[in-house]
Amino acid sequence: MTRTEAAGWLKSHDNYLILTHRRPDGDAVGSAVALCLGLRSLGKAAELFPNPQFPEKFLPLTRPLTGKGDPEGKTLVSVDTATEGMLPYNAQHLTGRIRLAIDHHASSTGYAEENYIDGGAAACGEMILELLPLLGAKLSKAMAEALYIAVSTDTGCFRFSNTTAATLRAAAACLEAGADVDRWNRLLFLTRSAARLKVEAHITQTAEFFLDGKICLCMLPYSVLKACGAREDDLDEISGFPRSIQGVEVGIMLREALDGAKISLRTYKPWDASAICALLGGGGHAAAAGATVKGNLSQGRDAILAALRQYGKEVGLWPAES
Amino acid sequence: MTRTEAAGWLKSHDNYLILTHRRPDGDAVGSAVALCLGLRSLGKAAELFPNPQFPEKFLPLTRPLTGKGDPEGKTLVSVDTATEGMLPYNAQHLTGRIRLAIDHHASSTGYAEENYIDGGAAACGEMILELLPLLGAKLSKAMAEALYIAVSTDTGCFRFSNTTAATLRAAAACLEAGADVDRWNRLLFLTRSAARLKVEAHITQTAEFFLDGKICLCMLPYSVLKACGAREDDLDEISGFPRSIQGVEVGIMLREALDGAKISLRTYKPWDASAICALLGGGGHAAAAGATVKGNLSQGRDAILAALRQYGKEVGLWPAES
Repeated sequence: MTRTEAAGWLKSHDNYLILTHRRPDGDAVGSAVALCLGLRSLGKAAELFPNPQFPEKFLPLTRPLTGKGDPEGKTLVSVDTATEGMLPYNAQHLTGRIRLAIDHHASSTGYAEENYIDGGAAACGEMILELLPLLGAKLSKAMAEALYIAVSTDTGCFRFSNTTAATLRAAAACLEAGADVDRWNRLLFLTRSAARLKVEAHITQTAEFFLDGKICLCMLPYSVLKACGAREDDLDEISGFPRSIQGVEVGIMLREALDGAKISLRTYKPWDASAICALLGGGGHAAAAGATVKGNLSQGRDAILAALRQYGKEVGLWPAES
Repeated sequence: MTRTEAAGWLKSHDNYLILTHRRPDGDAVGSAVALCLGLRSLGKAAELFPNPQFPEKFLPLTRPLTGKGDPEGKTLVSVDTATEGMLPYNAQHLTGRIRLAIDHHASSTGYAEENYIDGGAAACGEMILELLPLLGAKLSKAMAEALYIAVSTDTGCFRFSNTTAATLRAAAACLEAGADVDRWNRLLFLTRSAARLKVEAHITQTAEFFLDGKICLCMLPYSVLKACGAREDDLDEISGFPRSIQGVEVGIMLREALDGAKISLRTYKPWDASAICALLGGGGHAAAAGATVKGNLSQGRDAILAALRQYGKEVGLWPAES
C-alpha cells in the first residue's frame, strides 16, 4: 500500500485499536500515540491496545489513550511491528485479525490485510508524521512530542547510521510544532541512572582486550547486576558498550540466561557479527548478532573467542600464528 | 551587519586569513574550514590562521588549508570568537586588525571593523551554511562535512537545549550534500577512550550525594587522572558528568589546579550555578559556572558545600535544620 492509499484507508474506517510490539520502544510508543491522537482529532474513535510492557517513562503518554483491548467491532492497526509473533503476549489471540500494518522494517512479513511498509524510514514515527497531513490532521504539540520520541530513540538521537535528512527534518517539524524536546532529551539521552553507571564502571574495570584492542569482551554476571542495583531498564543498549570503546571493532557482551550464556556481539566492518554468531547456532545482522550457548559465562567466553578465531582466520582478520 | 551585507562584503574582498578561537571546538574548526572552502570555490584566495591548538581529530580538515599566518595584505576574518582575548596566543598581535567577525555568541563584543552576529544560531556553522548560497558558493561534500561537525558538536549531537528546528534542517542539508556523518558521529559521539571510561568509573565509585541525591560531588585528583592514563582530550565535558546522573540537579566537579581547587558547577533549574559560584568569587551562567578556591581538593569540597548551603537556605532549597 502507498502512503496515499494508507491515508485513504484510515479515513474510510473507524473504531481503531492500535497495537504495538513486545517490549515496545520509543518508536512503537510514539508512533502509536501520535496515530491515536491524529485519528481522534478527525473525530474517530481510537485507543491503544494495553501492551503490558509499555515502559514506565512513557506511561504519561500511553495511559490516557489505553483501553481494555477488546477487539470486537474494532479496526486493528499495528505500528512498528514486523511480524505477528512480535505482538505482546496478551495479543497473541489477535493473530490473523490485524487489518493494517504500518511499519518501517524492510523485513516486515506482510501479515496484515493491508500493509504500508517503508523500509527506508529510520523510524515508524517518520511514516506517521507524513501520514498525518494526508489524513487532514494538524500536528498538535502532543503528537509532535510523541513523534519526536519515536524518531530520536530509533536513531540514538540522530547519531546512528540509519539517520537520514528526512529524519532530521521530521525532528525539526516536531520542534516547530512545540514539542518539549528538552525534557525528553534530558530523560532519554542526557541522564543515566546510578545503577547503570555502576554497571558501566564494572565493565570498564573488567573488560578483556584481544588483537591489539580491536576485540573487547565483557561479562555481566547476575550477581554483579544485583550488586549494582540494576533493573532491566538500566541495561538498555548495554550490549553496545564494549564496541563504544575507542579502537574496538568487535564488542562482546556475555550475560547469564536461564538456558546458558547469552552472547551479544556488535561489530564494525569488516567483521560480520551474523557470520560469527552463526558458528554458535545464533544469528542476526552484520553489525549486531547474538547466540546462546550451554554452560556458564566462562564457557560462553571460550565459545565466542573460539568462534571469533575461526571466523577471523577464515577471512584473514586473525593472525595465522595465534 | 545583516547576512546579506556580510555576503556582499565577503564577495567584494579577497585574500582571506580566517581566525578561530583558543582551544578551538568543532564549531570553530568546521565554520572556518567551510568558509575557507566556500571562498576558494569562488576563485578567491583564503587560508586558515595556524591555530596551534587545532585538535588532532580535526587536523585532516585544517592542515591542507592552513598557511603561515602572515597577516600582511590579508583580509582578516574571525569565526565563532566572541572577544579578541579569545584569539590564540600566537594571534594576540592581530588585535585591532580583524575586519569581519562572524559569530553566534550574543555576548560578542563587536571588536571587528564589521560584525555579523546572530545570537539565535545554535552554532556559527549554521550562519556559514546560510551565507554560502548568498555568496554563490555551492555546498560541496567537504563543506557539508565541516558544517555537520560544527552544528553537531555545538549541540551535543542535537541533544542540548540550544538545538532549534533550523539546526536540524542545517544538519539535514549537510547529509543531503553527501557529508560522511557516520564516520564523524562514530568518532565524536559514539566512542569514548579507555582512559575516559576509567575516569568515569572512578567518578561513579567515589561520587558523594547530598539532599536525597539532588546534589552530586565528584573529585578528580591529578593522581587519579594520571593512573587512568587520561590526557586533556579525554576530559572533554567531564564537568557535565555528575549532573548527568539521574535525579541530580546540582553537579559539582573538583579538580586540582596550580592555584588551588578548581570547582565546576552544573545545575538544573531552580538552582543558579552563577549565584552559587559568585559566593566563592567565581562566575558563569545560570546552568554552568565555576570558581577556583585556595587549598586542596578537600578544602575546595568544604568551600563549595558551604556556598551551596548558604545559597540553598537563602532561596529555600536547603532544609532549615541541616
